[in-house]
Amino acid sequence: MTLRIALDGMGGDHAPGIVVEGAALAHERDPGLGFVLFGDEARIKPLLERRGGLAGAVELVHTPDAVAGDAKPALALRQGRNTSMRLAINAVKDGRAAAAVSAGNTGALMAMAKVVLRTLPGIDRPALASAMPTRKDPTVVLDLGANVDCDPEHLFQFAVMGEVAARTVHGVAKPRVGLLNVGTEEVKGDDVVRKAAAMIRDSRLPIDFKGFIEGTDVTSGAVDVAVTDGFTGNVALKMAEGTVGLFATALKESFRSSLGGRLGYLFARHALAGLRHRFDPRLYNGAMFLGVNGVVVKSHGGTDALGFSTAIRVAVDLVRKGANDRIIEEMHAVTAALEPAPKATVSAS
Amino acid sequence: MTLRIALDGMGGDHAPGIVVEGAALAHERDPGLGFVLFGDEARIKPLLERRGGLAGAVELVHTPDAVAGDAKPALALRQGRNTSMRLAINAVKDGRAAAAVSAGNTGALMAMAKVVLRTLPGIDRPALASAMPTRKDPTVVLDLGANVDCDPEHLFQFAVMGEVAARTVHGVAKPRVGLLNVGTEEVKGDDVVRKAAAMIRDSRLPIDFKGFIEGTDVTSGAVDVAVTDGFTGNVALKMAEGTVGLFATALKESFRSSLGGRLGYLFARHALAGLRHRFDPRLYNGAMFLGVNGVVVKSHGGTDALGFSTAIRVAVDLVRKGANDRIIEEMHAVTAALEPAPKATVSAS
Repeated sequence: MTLRIALDGMGGDHAPGIVVEGAALAHERDPGLGFVLFGDEARIKPLLERRGGLAGAVELVHTPDAVAGDAKPALALRQGRNTSMRLAINAVKDGRAAAAVSAGNTGALMAMAKVVLRTLPGIDRPALASAMPTRKDPTVVLDLGANVDCDPEHLFQFAVMGEVAARTVHGVAKPRVGLLNVGTEEVKGDDVVRKAAAMIRDSRLPIDFKGFIEGTDVTSGAVDVAVTDGFTGNVALKMAEGTVGLFATALKESFRSSLGGRLGYLFARHALAGLRHRFDPRLYNGAMFLGVNGVVVKSHGGTDALGFSTAIRVAVDLVRKGANDRIIEEMHAVTAALEPAPKATVSAS
Repeated sequence: MTLRIALDGMGGDHAPGIVVEGAALAHERDPGLGFVLFGDEARIKPLLERRGGLAGAVELVHTPDAVAGDAKPALALRQGRNTSMRLAINAVKDGRAAAAVSAGNTGALMAMAKVVLRTLPGIDRPALASAMPTRKDPTVVLDLGANVDCDPEHLFQFAVMGEVAARTVHGVAKPRVGLLNVGTEEVKGDDVVRKAAAMIRDSRLPIDFKGFIEGTDVTSGAVDVAVTDGFTGNVALKMAEGTVGLFATALKESFRSSLGGRLGYLFARHALAGLRHRFDPRLYNGAMFLGVNGVVVKSHGGTDALGFSTAIRVAVDLVRKGANDRIIEEMHAVTAALEPAPKATVSAS
C-alpha cells in the first residue's frame, strides 16, 4: 500500500527544486511512497516533468501562497491559511497524508502543527528532536528550540518522547536516556533538572535512565537520548554544528597549505570519504516534532535534495514504526501510575 | 620587578608534576615571574631539584592538606583552611602573590575565591570565562558553569566583564559582544535574555553590542565575547569540546583505515601539525574567575605542563593588563549612569 507524505513545495532556501528532487530520491529508494505536493504549479510542474518516474507518485495541488522565511509564527498562523505549509499540515489532519515534511520557517511550522493537529494526550508541549553524530550510534537530542522555558514536567515528557523516537526511528532496543546538566552529581544544576530527574526515576516507566550527563557525554555516545530545555539544546547543537564546520574548513586549509598536504590529500582522499559521510549534515537532516498528534518533520532550510530525502525518510520511519501510538501508550501508563488507587470503601458523603 | 603567582601544587589529576613543570615552562618564557607554591614538600622538593633553573624563582610552602577532586564546595570551604588551594588564594588576599592558579576542584576554588577575596564593586556574581577557538581569533565565552540561574543583571555584568577580558587578555581594541539566544531576532528567547539585551543597549557603556547571536556565530568568530548563563554555557562548551574530540578521533581512524590513508598522512603530517596546534585544548587552557576581587585562574584538571603554563599566562595577562581595575571602572560608570541626577531644589521635609 502506498504511504502518502504531504510536502511543502515552497519551504526552504532552494524550494521547490530540492523538494521535487528530494522526493524523487526518496521514491527511488522506496517505491512504496506517494506524495501530495503543495505549491506554485507553474514552477513545480516543469520540475516534475523532468523527473518522469516520479510524476505518477505525486499529486500536485496548486497554491500561490507561501510562508516567508522570516514571518512571525502568529502572523503566519492567522494569515497563512492557503500557504503550501498550512495545506501540507491540513492534509495530515484530513487523513489525506500520513505525515508532512517542510523545509520552511520552523516557528510557523510548529505553530501550525500545534493548532491544526493539537498535541498527543498527556503531552503539554511538543518538542523538536534531531539525531546528532557521536563516537558510536547517533543520539536523539531534544528540545532544540521549541520551548525556551521548561518545567520539570516538560523535561519528563521530552524524556518519554525521545526514548520512543530512539526506539522506533533508530531501532535501539533499550535506549539509554540522560538529562543534560553542568555535572553528573545529583546535587548539580537547578531545581528544574533535579525535579525532572526525580520524576523520571520515580515513574514506573521502563526507561533506562542514566541520570545527569554533561555535554561531552552526548558526543561520546554515552546515551541514546539527551534531554534538555529548548534554549540550551538550541545553543549547544548550533555550537556543535559550528564546530564541525570549523574543523572541516581548517582541515581543508591544512591540506592546501603545502605541497606535502596536497600530495597527502591525493593519497588519503578515499580514506577520508568515510569521514565526510559520517559528519554529513544532510544525513542527519529532519527534526521531528514530537508530541504533535500527527507526524511533522522539519528539514533544514538550506539543505539540498539528498538532505530533504533524509527528512522524508525520518517522517516515513515515524509513521511506519507507529511512534505516536507508542508515545500515547507511555503517557497513558504514566497517567495511570499517577492516579490514586481506588478506595476500598465508599463513604456516604 | 618579579611578578609572583601563587600555585596550588596539589590540584589536578597529575599534580604536583604538571604544576612544577608548568611553572618551569612559564618561567623559561618569562623570567620575570616568581612563584609561591603550596603543597606536599616531600613530593614537590625532588621535582624542583630536577628543575634547577626554576628553584631560585620558587618559594615552597609546605602543607599536607589538599582539596579532593570530588569534595563538595561548602565542605571544602569549611574544612579546607590549610589546603594548598586555600593557601594559594590566601596569598592573593594577603598581597604575597598577584594571582592564584589551580587545576583543582572548580566548585571549591570558586567558593574559596568568593569568600576570601569577595567580589568586585558592582558585581553580584563572579563568572567563569574561557577562550574558545573560532574561524578567526579566539572568542571569550562566559559564564561556563558558575551560575546556573541568571537574572538579566547578571548577564549584563557578564557582558561588561567579558568585554574587559577580551580587551585586556586578548588585546582586542574594540571587542564585539553578543548574547547567546535561540535566534537573532529581537523577539526570540525568554524574558531574561530580552531584558539583558535591553540593559546592555541602554547602558551608556561604549560596548560594541551585536545583540543576539546563535551558537554558530561563536564558532564563526562573529563576536569576540559570547555571553550566556552558566547552564547553557557549560553544556554548549562541553558539547563543542566533545565534537572536536569526536572529529579528531574520526580523522585519525580514517588515516589508519587504508594504505592510501597511511601514505597520505605521511605526506600531509607537517601540513596537519598546524591544525593540531589550532585546536590544541592546552593552548586554550585557563578559565578566568571574572568579578572576583583578585586574579584566580582555573586550569583544566587533566591538562599537562604545557596546558598549566598557559593557565599561568592567562593569570599573568589579567594582572599585567589590570583587568580588574578596568572592570571596576566600567561598573562604576554603570552605577553613575543609573543614579538619579541631583535635585535642583531642596524641599524642607
